[in-house]
Amino acid sequence: MSLENPIVSVIGAGAVGGYYGARLAQHGHEVHFLMRGHASAAKKSGLRVRSHAGDFSLSPDRIHVHESADSLPKSDLILVTIKTTANHRLAELIAPAVKGDSAIVTMQNGLGNEELLAEYFGAERILGGMAFVCINRTGPGEISHTDHGLIRLGEFSGGPGERTRRIAEILNASKIPCEVLDNLAHGRWEKLIWNVPFNGLGALLDLTTDRLIGSEEGLSLVRRLMEEVVQTAANVGVRFGLEIIQQKIIHTQTMGAYRTSTQIDRQMGRPFELEAIWGKPLAVAKKHHAVTPELEMLYNMLRLLDTGTESR
Amino acid sequence: MSLENPIVSVIGAGAVGGYYGARLAQHGHEVHFLMRGHASAAKKSGLRVRSHAGDFSLSPDRIHVHESADSLPKSDLILVTIKTTANHRLAELIAPAVKGDSAIVTMQNGLGNEELLAEYFGAERILGGMAFVCINRTGPGEISHTDHGLIRLGEFSGGPGERTRRIAEILNASKIPCEVLDNLAHGRWEKLIWNVPFNGLGALLDLTTDRLIGSEEGLSLVRRLMEEVVQTAANVGVRFGLEIIQQKIIHTQTMGAYRTSTQIDRQMGRPFELEAIWGKPLAVAKKHHAVTPELEMLYNMLRLLDTGTESR
Repeated sequence: MSLENPIVSVIGAGAVGGYYGARLAQHGHEVHFLMRGHASAAKKSGLRVRSHAGDFSLSPDRIHVHESADSLPKSDLILVTIKTTANHRLAELIAPAVKGDSAIVTMQNGLGNEELLAEYFGAERILGGMAFVCINRTGPGEISHTDHGLIRLGEFSGGPGERTRRIAEILNASKIPCEVLDNLAHGRWEKLIWNVPFNGLGALLDLTTDRLIGSEEGLSLVRRLMEEVVQTAANVGVRFGLEIIQQKIIHTQTMGAYRTSTQIDRQMGRPFELEAIWGKPLAVAKKHHAVTPELEMLYNMLRLLDTGTESR
Repeated sequence: MSLENPIVSVIGAGAVGGYYGARLAQHGHEVHFLMRGHASAAKKSGLRVRSHAGDFSLSPDRIHVHESADSLPKSDLILVTIKTTANHRLAELIAPAVKGDSAIVTMQNGLGNEELLAEYFGAERILGGMAFVCINRTGPGEISHTDHGLIRLGEFSGGPGERTRRIAEILNASKIPCEVLDNLAHGRWEKLIWNVPFNGLGALLDLTTDRLIGSEEGLSLVRRLMEEVVQTAANVGVRFGLEIIQQKIIHTQTMGAYRTSTQIDRQMGRPFELEAIWGKPLAVAKKHHAVTPELEMLYNMLRLLDTGTESR
C-alpha cells in the first residue's frame, strides 16, 4: 500500500464524494472521481465548493473525471460514496480500482455496507467512515458546504493500525478533520441515532431539522426513535448512555434549517436509503426481540412513500 | 318536539351536511342550511348531488340557505356537521335554532362533541350520529356521493327512545339508511377504529385508502393502530373483538381509491381535526396507562404537519 503519494478514487461523486474528493485534490492529491450525471460539467468546468470555511475551485486539470469504472486506475485509497440504493452495483463500480493493498473506505449511510464490501473484496481491505457534514450538491460540479465536516474512521476487522492512522493524517492534512475509532460498530450505531429520526422524519414530514426539534411533539418523536436505536444497539453489545440523546439534539441545534439527504431524496423523487438506515436496524431489533414500535412504524411509512426501485 | 313535519337545520353544509340535508329536502322536508363559502352559489343554483344511487338536483326554491345563524328558524332537528376545528364557535352557530324540544344530532368526527354540546344546550337534547359515507364536495353547491351512506344514531344520555326511532324513520324514509344504536360510545369508538388509521395515515402519507391497504407495510400500520384504538376503548368499558379489525379492512376494500377528509384537508392546506380524532383518544389512553406508541407517534406527526389554527 502506498499511502505516501496515494492515488485516490472516489466512487460516486455526489455531495459527499464530491466534497471530500475536492478537499483531497485541493491539497495536492491525485483524485479520480467516478461520476454519473455531472461528469461532462466537471470535465469542462472542474469543481466549485462554496464553503463556510472559505470557497475554492478546482480547474479541470486538477481533477480526474471518469464516467465508467473501467478507466479508474488501481488506487491506494478508495472512498465509496454511492448511495446504498445502488449497492447491487457496488462490486462492478469498485473492482477496477482495487489492487492488493487498496484501502476501501465506505462512507455510505447505515448498516451492512462494510459486510457487503468484505464479501466482494475481503474484510482486511475494508474501513468505514462516517461523515458528519452539512453539504448539498447545488448544481453540476457545484457543492455547498454549510457546516461541520468531521469523518470518523474505523477498521472493519480488528482495531486501528498504522494504515488507519496514515489515512487519518492524509485527511487531516487536507482540511478534513478525522477521528480514528477504536470500534467501528459503535460509530455506525452512533450515526444511526441521528440518521434514523432526522432522515426518517425529515423525509416523511418534509421538514428540515430545525422544524423537527422546534416543538415538543417533534422532540418527542426524535427522542423516542433515538431511544429505540440506543436500545437496539445494546442488543449487539454497542452501549450508549442515554445522555447521548440530549447531546445529539444540542448538536442538531447548531445545524440550522438542514435538509437531510433523505428529505432531498423525497423532494427529488429519488429512492430512499431505506434498508441501510431503517430496515437493517429494525431487523436487528426483531432478531433480538427488542420492542421498537416507533422504528417499525417509521420504516413502514417510509416504505409506503418510497418511490424507489431499491432491491430488497 | 314536532317530528311529524320537522323543521331541519344543517349547521355547516360541507360535504356531509350538504349531502344529508339534500336527501331530506329531496324527500319533502323543510331544510335550512347554514353555509359559509358556497352560500351564494347554492342560493343562485341550488344543490346538485351526483350519486352512485342516482343523481338529483334541488332548485333554489326547495332549499333555505343561510349565511348567518341569526336567520335560522327554531328547529326540531338540528344536524351539526361543522368541522371540529370550528368547535370554539359551536354555541353561537347553533343557539339561534335551538328551542325547548330541539333534537341536536352531532355528526362530527371523533370524541368530545356530544359533551361540548351537552354543556351548552343540555344533555337531554343531544344525540350522536356517525356517517359511513363516501362523499366529497366537488364544487360550489355540488356534491359527489360515491358509496355507502349509513348513519348510526344514538342518544347521548340514556338509551334510544321514541324520539330516536322517529328520527331514524325520517332518515330512512329519505333514502338515508339509519341504524339506532343502544350505546353511542360503542359507535363512536367503532368509527374511530377506522378514522384513526385511515384519516391519519392518509393525511400523513397523502395516500388514498386503497394504497394504505394495498401492501403488507400499509396493512401492518393500519392493523396496529386499530389494535391500539380497540385496546384504548376497552379501558373505558367499550369492548370489541379483534375480528373487527379484519372486518374494517374488508369494508375498506369496497371503497376504492377513497380520499379521507383529512387527506383532503392536507391537500387544501386546511387544519386537521386533530384533537377530536387523535388527541382525545390518546388522552384516554394516557389516562388509563394504555401503551399506544403508534397512536402517539401518529398524533405527534400530524401535529407537526398541521397548518391549522385549531385551538387546543
